[in-house]
Amino acid sequence: MWGACAPVGRAAATGGYRRLPFAGAEVELRHWFAEAAAARGLALAADPFGNLVAWWRPEGPDGARPGVLTGSHLDSVVDGGAFDGPLGVVSALAAVDRLRERGVVPARPLGVAVLAAEEGSRFPVACLGSRLATGALPWERARELRDADGTALPDAMAAAGLDPSAAEAGAGSDVADPDRVACFLELHVEQGRDLVDRGAAVGAASGIWPHGRYRFDFTGRADHAGTTRMEDRRDPMLTYAMTALAANKQARVAGQRATFGRVEVAPNGTNAVPSRVTGWMDARADSEAGLAELVDAVVRLGSDRAGRDGTALDVVPESVQAAVAFDADLTARLAGPRGWPVVPTAAGHDAGVLAEAGVPTAMLFVRNPTGVSHAPDEHAEVADCLAGVAALADCLQELVS
Amino acid sequence: MWGACAPVGRAAATGGYRRLPFAGAEVELRHWFAEAAAARGLALAADPFGNLVAWWRPEGPDGARPGVLTGSHLDSVVDGGAFDGPLGVVSALAAVDRLRERGVVPARPLGVAVLAAEEGSRFPVACLGSRLATGALPWERARELRDADGTALPDAMAAAGLDPSAAEAGAGSDVADPDRVACFLELHVEQGRDLVDRGAAVGAASGIWPHGRYRFDFTGRADHAGTTRMEDRRDPMLTYAMTALAANKQARVAGQRATFGRVEVAPNGTNAVPSRVTGWMDARADSEAGLAELVDAVVRLGSDRAGRDGTALDVVPESVQAAVAFDADLTARLAGPRGWPVVPTAAGHDAGVLAEAGVPTAMLFVRNPTGVSHAPDEHAEVADCLAGVAALADCLQELVS
Repeated sequence: MWGACAPVGRAAATGGYRRLPFAGAEVELRHWFAEAAAARGLALAADPFGNLVAWWRPEGPDGARPGVLTGSHLDSVVDGGAFDGPLGVVSALAAVDRLRERGVVPARPLGVAVLAAEEGSRFPVACLGSRLATGALPWERARELRDADGTALPDAMAAAGLDPSAAEAGAGSDVADPDRVACFLELHVEQGRDLVDRGAAVGAASGIWPHGRYRFDFTGRADHAGTTRMEDRRDPMLTYAMTALAANKQARVAGQRATFGRVEVAPNGTNAVPSRVTGWMDARADSEAGLAELVDAVVRLGSDRAGRDGTALDVVPESVQAAVAFDADLTARLAGPRGWPVVPTAAGHDAGVLAEAGVPTAMLFVRNPTGVSHAPDEHAEVADCLAGVAALADCLQELVS
Repeated sequence: MWGACAPVGRAAATGGYRRLPFAGAEVELRHWFAEAAAARGLALAADPFGNLVAWWRPEGPDGARPGVLTGSHLDSVVDGGAFDGPLGVVSALAAVDRLRERGVVPARPLGVAVLAAEEGSRFPVACLGSRLATGALPWERARELRDADGTALPDAMAAAGLDPSAAEAGAGSDVADPDRVACFLELHVEQGRDLVDRGAAVGAASGIWPHGRYRFDFTGRADHAGTTRMEDRRDPMLTYAMTALAANKQARVAGQRATFGRVEVAPNGTNAVPSRVTGWMDARADSEAGLAELVDAVVRLGSDRAGRDGTALDVVPESVQAAVAFDADLTARLAGPRGWPVVPTAAGHDAGVLAEAGVPTAMLFVRNPTGVSHAPDEHAEVADCLAGVAALADCLQELVS
């Protein structure tokens, strides 16, 4: 399965993956998933929002019980790694194969899920599929989302061969419906070096740090870069630059995270002082109070500098995610007997969205020797991936029994 | 004429002009110019590089003498102002009309020039048309230039209805040929407030400050913005931000100019530490030694910071323009008797390229009450524009007599 997926959407120039949702490589992977489900005799169900579930449904009344859901996503950030997302989907299918080899007959349905548009790499909302499925994001708002080319979400879905008409008609999803889904278990490559430091191939997640994305609009005045004296300028690039440095410093001092990784400049000409610089800050902290303090400090420092630069700063929180605690009972039941470490993460996941919606949820991490993620160096050794499949299979066997 | 040009290429959202060379609005203005030339019985000549000259050629042997060339350009920066370029072209045509009203019979040809792609807003070389015409830029290098969409210059020219085959075949231009052009006079909106401070509607230019465009490539390591500890990062955004601030400070202290107005980030994702940030520095100084000192200081400060950030900085000078002195005799002959102030400028112009190629060249500036340029606020009052036309007509009448 890994051999089938590895070449899809890989950019030769960077070695990174470009699997933006509802287009090209990501659509190819959806087709691959549908074929993999069909090859296993799993019944593929699509919800109105582009989420897919391949169900292994036992005969008789057991088939109508709330099921165990596992899986992850197939989209990537721009120039992302191979493992973030696909490892959870491939491992889930491999775990199904293991259970069948073991002769397991599930006492409730087992579903392998592909949740749509997790990364927010095309439309500016992360975990789009799970947020729509849980109702955390209403379709009425999502349908207005546009990508960088101006394509609206429903049009992007239609262009990818999906049918947004059910969503338009107000239909919901059963991915977070307690009558259909008893619990969710997501396996994911670790996005840090915690398991490396602990010498463990597999671990479980305790929860997710609160985090948010904040759009910083710095507005100044466009001017000729040659003829305008430095002291006559209102250059928003300066305010941006100082704010990006301040964010880094504040986060470093507080042991939190703040990143300006995305910038857009208008008019973005070499010989023009910009009229506007927009930077997006990704901020995460170990507590909600810590996150608020961090963001407040950066906004305050940026606004002070704007006053000195003659520019204006406007900050819009585009998405703010509260702290998530995964189901402690479920996590303890899975990790405890196996001696797995239980560690927090600062990365958002569909598992977090489902947990927030009340679905009992746990996560497994597979060791990443580089600790690097969202980049081509993201990695997991084959032995660790196989340990992850074995761990997932053991957990699922326990949950469906 | 102004009414015909004003709506072309104006973006409703910003009020700025988007007349990128060899496309859309700029091509429309070329057609408008051809019609304006035809309406006046001027003979339109196109050189192999997209430069146009509308010739008013006297009968008999005077028509074979080297001519007086005037004009400017019709392309703009992204979201530029209405006056930078078109004012010189429209004023030149209006000056021809004045001379004819006065019954002037020229004793040598008078050409109104539209020089191509002056702003460097699409292909990364400013004054592309005049550089090609003078041989300052060989076609063999220019033909490799690509715009942001990857379109090569010859393909862009062909798509705009121009024919690059003459350039491909090695043909040259007569725009800077001393047998065809005796001198060049460019009228331009002022890009500063010198004439405002002096209370003059029209002035002449003494010369152009040396200036250059330098590409700063900051390379780091892509990482997940949530999970990578601040101290484990190699974030090129920080190095860029500090360098942009340092450039501003160095230029401010030295009374020179340095601007980072254009930035590209890879992968440019909110939740990814960038692998690369590229910023373009526009730098100008009142002497070549001053420019070298300014650039050296910024590169040194940026490199020092790169060492602390674990990133790398590579600097490529994309174009460096030596100081230009306009023809002192010509300038004195035109400005002296009329009492016009003679001021330097920090902006590059086709006039500077022609002057460097040995064409006796002068420039006239028309007062700009805002001092703003390359932006929608760029302005000139109607009375000042008419004063510019009268001044240009007087100069041309003297030169063609």
